[in-house]
Amino acid sequence: MSKPKTAITPTREENYAEWYQQVIAGADLAESSPVRGCMIIRPWGYTLWENMQRALDDMFKATGHQNAYFPLFIPLSFLQKEAAHVEGFAKECAVVTHHRLEAGPDGKLVPTGELEEPLIVRPTSETIIGDAFSRWVQSYRDLPLLINQWANVVRWEMRTRLFLRTTEFLWQEGHTAHATREEAVEETMRMLDVYAEFAESWMAVPVIKGEKTAGERFPGADRTFSIEAMMQDRKALQTGTSHFLGQNFARASNIQFLGADGTQQYAWTTSWGVSTRLIGGLLMTHSDDDGFVLPPKLAPQQVVIIPIYRSDDEKGRVLEYCRKVAAELRAQRYEGAAVRATVDERDERGGEKVWHWVRKGVPVRLEIGPRDIDKDAVFAARRDRAPKDKQSVARAEFVATIAETLESIQGGLYDRAAAYRDDHTVEIDDRDEFYKFFTPPSVAEGAPTPIHGGFALTHFSGEVELEEKIKNDLGVTVRNIPLDDVEPGVCPFTGRPSAQRVVWAKAY
Amino acid sequence: MSKPKTAITPTREENYAEWYQQVIAGADLAESSPVRGCMIIRPWGYTLWENMQRALDDMFKATGHQNAYFPLFIPLSFLQKEAAHVEGFAKECAVVTHHRLEAGPDGKLVPTGELEEPLIVRPTSETIIGDAFSRWVQSYRDLPLLINQWANVVRWEMRTRLFLRTTEFLWQEGHTAHATREEAVEETMRMLDVYAEFAESWMAVPVIKGEKTAGERFPGADRTFSIEAMMQDRKALQTGTSHFLGQNFARASNIQFLGADGTQQYAWTTSWGVSTRLIGGLLMTHSDDDGFVLPPKLAPQQVVIIPIYRSDDEKGRVLEYCRKVAAELRAQRYEGAAVRATVDERDERGGEKVWHWVRKGVPVRLEIGPRDIDKDAVFAARRDRAPKDKQSVARAEFVATIAETLESIQGGLYDRAAAYRDDHTVEIDDRDEFYKFFTPPSVAEGAPTPIHGGFALTHFSGEVELEEKIKNDLGVTVRNIPLDDVEPGVCPFTGRPSAQRVVWAKAY
Repeated sequence: MSKPKTAITPTREENYAEWYQQVIAGADLAESSPVRGCMIIRPWGYTLWENMQRALDDMFKATGHQNAYFPLFIPLSFLQKEAAHVEGFAKECAVVTHHRLEAGPDGKLVPTGELEEPLIVRPTSETIIGDAFSRWVQSYRDLPLLINQWANVVRWEMRTRLFLRTTEFLWQEGHTAHATREEAVEETMRMLDVYAEFAESWMAVPVIKGEKTAGERFPGADRTFSIEAMMQDRKALQTGTSHFLGQNFARASNIQFLGADGTQQYAWTTSWGVSTRLIGGLLMTHSDDDGFVLPPKLAPQQVVIIPIYRSDDEKGRVLEYCRKVAAELRAQRYEGAAVRATVDERDERGGEKVWHWVRKGVPVRLEIGPRDIDKDAVFAARRDRAPKDKQSVARAEFVATIAETLESIQGGLYDRAAAYRDDHTVEIDDRDEFYKFFTPPSVAEGAPTPIHGGFALTHFSGEVELEEKIKNDLGVTVRNIPLDDVEPGVCPFTGRPSAQRVVWAKAY
Repeated sequence: MSKPKTAITPTREENYAEWYQQVIAGADLAESSPVRGCMIIRPWGYTLWENMQRALDDMFKATGHQNAYFPLFIPLSFLQKEAAHVEGFAKECAVVTHHRLEAGPDGKLVPTGELEEPLIVRPTSETIIGDAFSRWVQSYRDLPLLINQWANVVRWEMRTRLFLRTTEFLWQEGHTAHATREEAVEETMRMLDVYAEFAESWMAVPVIKGEKTAGERFPGADRTFSIEAMMQDRKALQTGTSHFLGQNFARASNIQFLGADGTQQYAWTTSWGVSTRLIGGLLMTHSDDDGFVLPPKLAPQQVVIIPIYRSDDEKGRVLEYCRKVAAELRAQRYEGAAVRATVDERDERGGEKVWHWVRKGVPVRLEIGPRDIDKDAVFAARRDRAPKDKQSVARAEFVATIAETLESIQGGLYDRAAAYRDDHTVEIDDRDEFYKFFTPPSVAEGAPTPIHGGFALTHFSGEVELEEKIKNDLGVTVRNIPLDDVEPGVCPFTGRPSAQRVVWAKAY
């Protein structure tokens, strides 16, 4: 049998890392910029991000949060207020040291106007927001304080990859202060639930909610929780984190309040964030060897209509019909909003247009030519099925059922991703089996590592050194300790008691 | 007569600059941060910005633009590509020179990892976006390219003022490329119109559209157009600019395309922007000596309901009724969206709540107590009228007419601002009269300069030196050359012919 032609080269099996880059390029999602490690998010990728933002923002507001905006720059002395925090970020900081440019002796512009204190381009904003909170919080009546910020942040990464790890990225960071430990823990878990709900309902990405081990905690946090998803190379992607910060940042920033009992107390704080990394996760969950696959709820366009004609005469008639269908679709509603439908009127060949929209991942494509119009029908294809799998459907029926079609795609993508994850998640109770599970098949030198492994659920007695050894041996880490598994057992590595199974995987 | 009590001290007349700061503080819009010249935008100010963004973004999309995102950092060599451009921004650049922090000999953290080429935190993005456009534009089929970015930018200002002039500010920057000069000019004017429409219809701020003189042009532009509004101290505020960049940046960034005629050509580009400065302009147009005044279309809350009760018994009954009224209001629509109404259930005295919302500028306040409920009525006050001017209105009538009430406030604010501007705009045809118009009344040493002057419309023969002299003499500049005035005349300063009157004013 000859190898099937795909719109993306190489395929996932052939070279997963390169396939990822090619899907991004094929969908015009983003590109590298001339600034080391910084990406340009192109309109198709940015519109997807806007849709994600809108959905998340609605969820944040529904849970009582308000948006605000804090400075891009953090004085070095602020970053140093929390010891573990500065330790965690010092190695990857963009540092502003000067505030003007002047021509030097050779006429070349050089930085001048040295700052008394260097400014750090925010890698995260606990310290600068903590400082504001210390002024805003005086009494227990000022609590809880529930703030979110949409912003760009910078972490000077040495090895970058579009969306997954970039020097600058876009994100939101929630920061909250509470009167009691219980309320802060509750908030931490509430936002973890919001993230899981967003990942599953909007992105159609199944996730495991759990707590991070000590080594993977956010610098300065008491407890860090994450949602973890399985990509199609069976690696884990952490797609959101929620941190219980205890009183660490409240002490560092002096966030104190007068309690109802008349005593002065430190507040309890949380922070939580998701970023443009979500786009990388969405891509690696659903996309196939023909390119990007978009869940309908987040798709910039949900239906694209491709007019098919051979002559100018046909063109007028076909375009008119296509525009009418688009208008009818836009009058339909899906998930509380008008259906997003567009006609591709560009002056290109029909076949090229079809592949263009396949690569961009639009959930539903319609091809409409004179013969379809004669039948008052549309030729419909779904992005979750094979490109050649097209059906003629009566126009009125297609329009009337568009919400169901989109919902069927949305649900189908989730089910497929959940099945893939479940197929590659195994409970392992034996050390050798564990090592075998994560050892890749041998391949010719220089060839990419084949897809292998998955999620291994094992008991674990929790030693930091053991986790470190397994990481060194296999490149595998504890992704998280699932919240919904509390069955005790025996650790296969140490023979010691274990409170519950944890998720091991290779990870991005 | 005793001086009337006001919620803001000092009043506009007493000290306009200080009044401005106090209105911001009284409305919790923003505050200074520990980072020199950078502000914190508090939730009330940020929600206003979100409402502005939403309205502008819809207008940009309706005119065919798409959002994208480009790097925060601009390599020094990029900024230098356009000579006038780098000249214009070199003196106010935040420069990133290092990418990590390490403990020095004394244990203090110092910047290390010096960059080979310094990075400039974007003051504007023509050069970095131009570089992307040079890759995206190949053929005339790729044009027009209509891109917008919502972003933070940094200009190292020495004298800062919240919203009006800050080191970091939030803005949008549109960047477009076209095949012909005519199309680029048309785009420049289209976006100027969009800005004027937004200022007048949404912000209720009347503006004058016009062209900037050479000295006030954007660095690197062929022509710069602005909208100018009059503040209540009669100074002008430039609230938006739209630049026709000619082929300057296309040559600098090598944005070339193959024309329909088969020849290789440079594109014609534009850029246009508005920023969080708009909030300062909105404030100084409408606010009064009791604080902020919000136009209903942009108000974070349009109606606030203040429950009035004396006992716990009353409280339950009053809150229930207030919540019902809020729900009824939210079921009404104004300007295509649900009316934004909230009940202030905080545990504060009613009088304090009233002044709290007066200072925040909410368009309509309701006070509801047991006696109002007995009559099934609400006690309503409008923020555009005196605080004590309250009326009892039957609940059903109030709810049914809320959209009209809000529209009446929106229109009234515009009319009042337009009348104020017109009252202080004069045609002047004599040099001495001009100098007298802009000379402040003498006051005691150290006292703030009284409000004086306004907009002077004079003929002007256009000499750069003359404009410079008047600026030095009076602190007055040509704000713009209005688009809708083309009556020729004689310049009162030189006696030479003048194509039309220009707008002179002191300005922010």
